[in-house]
Order: sequence, then structure tokens, then C-alpha cells
Amino acid sequence: MIPHVELPTPPPLVHRGLFVAFEGGERVGKSTQVAALRDHLAARGVPHLVTREPGGTPVAEQIRALVLDPRHAGLDLRAEALLFAAARGEHVRAAVLPALERGEVVVTDRYLDSSVAYQGVARGLGRDVVEGLSLWATGGLVPDLTVVLDGEVTTGLARVADPDRIESEPLAFHETVRRAFLGLAARAPHRYLVADAADPVAAIASRVAARVDELLEAG
Amino acid sequence: MIPHVELPTPPPLVHRGLFVAFEGGERVGKSTQVAALRDHLAARGVPHLVTREPGGTPVAEQIRALVLDPRHAGLDLRAEALLFAAARGEHVRAAVLPALERGEVVVTDRYLDSSVAYQGVARGLGRDVVEGLSLWATGGLVPDLTVVLDGEVTTGLARVADPDRIESEPLAFHETVRRAFLGLAARAPHRYLVADAADPVAAIASRVAARVDELLEAG
Repeated sequence: MIPHVELPTPPPLVHRGLFVAFEGGERVGKSTQVAALRDHLAARGVPHLVTREPGGTPVAEQIRALVLDPRHAGLDLRAEALLFAAARGEHVRAAVLPALERGEVVVTDRYLDSSVAYQGVARGLGRDVVEGLSLWATGGLVPDLTVVLDGEVTTGLARVADPDRIESEPLAFHETVRRAFLGLAARAPHRYLVADAADPVAAIASRVAARVDELLEAG
Repeated sequence: MIPHVELPTPPPLVHRGLFVAFEGGERVGKSTQVAALRDHLAARGVPHLVTREPGGTPVAEQIRALVLDPRHAGLDLRAEALLFAAARGEHVRAAVLPALERGEVVVTDRYLDSSVAYQGVARGLGRDVVEGLSLWATGGLVPDLTVVLDGEVTTGLARVADPDRIESEPLAFHETVRRAFLGLAARAPHRYLVADAADPVAAIASRVAARVDELLEAG
């Protein structure tokens, strides 16, 4: 029996577009900021695709429904991580990568760091293993910019009306997720923008827009 | 960026039961032999669980439906492998392992070798990577005995009335799968029984029953 398998994680995938991910805990304002960036890109006439994870393609949306279903409370932890990686692989191949190859800006509500924070760190499966699964699944696609919205866990959870399987986890789980996102940002600060989710929506949006414009001009 | 991830593959999982898998190509007679072994165990009064992959639990059956759906013809290859591994992890945790821990005989129609043969070898994802994903997903559960039914690919495919996504693959794909199963059996002959699918059903069934009885007496 082999003691471990070397899961090859390809080098960062090169493309013509710009890939921006929004990350953060529950109801921290990600979709509001995604919409603000979409409006900014539309106003500037920049071709773009707005998407989300898990989901973004028909198959991946079916996986999303399965993995977030509160009836699957006891779902095996490794099965959960594999399902998220599968959904991500399909999302990248069928939606994200084609848009990036056309030179578009792709804006996604959650990506790889969510798996690392939730399954790798908070569920305890291991940061490297979970990151490796996603890198293998996506052929090495990492965002050019990841925006982390950092907010009080209790503020976000208070906004959840009808919790899904992951929103139903205890407070300590969500605190761990919050710290994990900050840890990931600290590891590669040039590829991250960390914003205080308590700041005014417009203030965060204009910081993000400025950073994206900068990357578009540089690229 | 990490060049590869070491996906830990636990040592073979120890349990009180006996785990028997039936493997082979399409319509080669697996379910007939599974039923024959079930009847043999029932006649001897041996507690047992008969199951199948992908599937065997509600979540895993949903994954099965998704991955075999002919409408998902373009499904990403790595996503497919991750979905099979996810289904297997959930199947083992929720159904197979509890029965083995009660000391039962678990008989499954397909298991890990199917992923290795179809996704690892025939799809070209790599035998070790695909095996590693499943070992990680299942906590290292390998069958005590794998019965490979080896038959002509054309004979099996001729029996398929309404092909699913994998049965629709070309003949060469299925020939590669057939050779892959034989290669896996040759690697660890003491854990395999290879039967010619063209032999009479009863002759195969009695060889399998004799081998299972031997393992039960030894165990």
C-alpha cells in the first residue's frame, strides 16, 4: 500500500483575463460588493462574467444543492471537500476559464480560499490537502486578486434567516473560518485586499474598483 | 505555489467483517454474481449487506444520478473523479464501515478499482492519483477480496439498451478498462479472484462462494 499520493498541483494557470474572487464569512456583504464591482465594470465597458461558488454551471449548481442541503447533516467531511473540489473543477472548465481566455474580468462570489478556510482549517482536513485538491481540480487557477471581507461573525450570522448546512455550524467554527481567511491573505498580501466589512459599502467598493482598475491598466 | 500535495493515504483499515467487491466492465454479469453470493450467505445464515457503487446511500445515489446523466456529456474529467471519490467516502462512512464493524460480510457491486480503471487508466488521470483520492476518501478501506469478471467488451456492450454517460464511451475505452482490471488483479493476486465471464454462472458462483467461505473460516 502506498503511504501517500503526490497529487500534482500545476503551476499558476496563465490566461488573458483578470480573475477576482470575493471571500469572507456568512452574510458579510460579499454579494453587495460583487454587484458594486459588476456595476463599475459595466460603467467602464469592461467585458466581464459574474459568478459564484459552489455553482456557476448546471452540474455545479446541482452539487451546491446537494452539499448545502440541511437534510445531509451527517455528510462525510472528506466527501464534502471532494464535492466542493468537483464543483470548482467543473465551474472553472465550463465557465471561468473560457471567459478568462476571452480576456474578460471574472468576478466570483467565493472560490478556493473558502474551501481552505471551511474544510481545510475549520473542519480540520488540512490546509494543504484541501488547497491541493482544488488546484488539481482547476488545473492551477488562482485569482489575480482576492478581496477578503472581514467582519464580526455574530453580525453576519444574525442576518441568516434560514440557515443552510454550513451556516448552522456553531460560532467557534465561524470564528475559525474568519481567522483562516486573514491567515491566507497574510501569506500573499500582494494578491489580496482585506476590507473591514463594517466600513461603508461605497468606501469598500471604491477601494476594490481602484485596485481592479490598477490591475487592468497593468495587465 | 506548492508543486504537489501529499495526499495522505491511511494504512489498510482494520475491521471485524469481510469486504468483497465485484469488478468488471459493462454488463459482464456482476449483479448476477452479487445476487448469487447474497443467496449463498443467506443460506449459510451469515449476516451481510449487499450494496453498489456509485451509490449505496441517499447522498451517494444523488451523486450517481448526476455523474451518470447522459446530459452531462462534457463533465470535467477531474470533477468526475472527485465526484466518484466523494460518493465512495460517503458510502463507506454511512453504510459499508458500520456493517463491517458489526462483523458482517459486505458485498459491493463496484468499488475503488472501478475508479482506477475508468478514471485513472482509461481517462488518463493517473492510477496512483485516482487510487489516492479514494483511499483518502475512505480512510484506507480496501476489499479483502475483489472478484474481477473478465469478459468480451462487445458481448457486454451489446446488452446495454439505454447507455449512460460512461457506457456511451467508444469500444477502445472499454478495452482499456478491461486490461486495467486485469492489471490491478495481477498486482495483488492473493486479494483477487479473476473469473472468465463466459463461464457458466453457477460455476463462477461456486468458485466465489468457496473463496468467501475460506476467508470466513480463516477470519
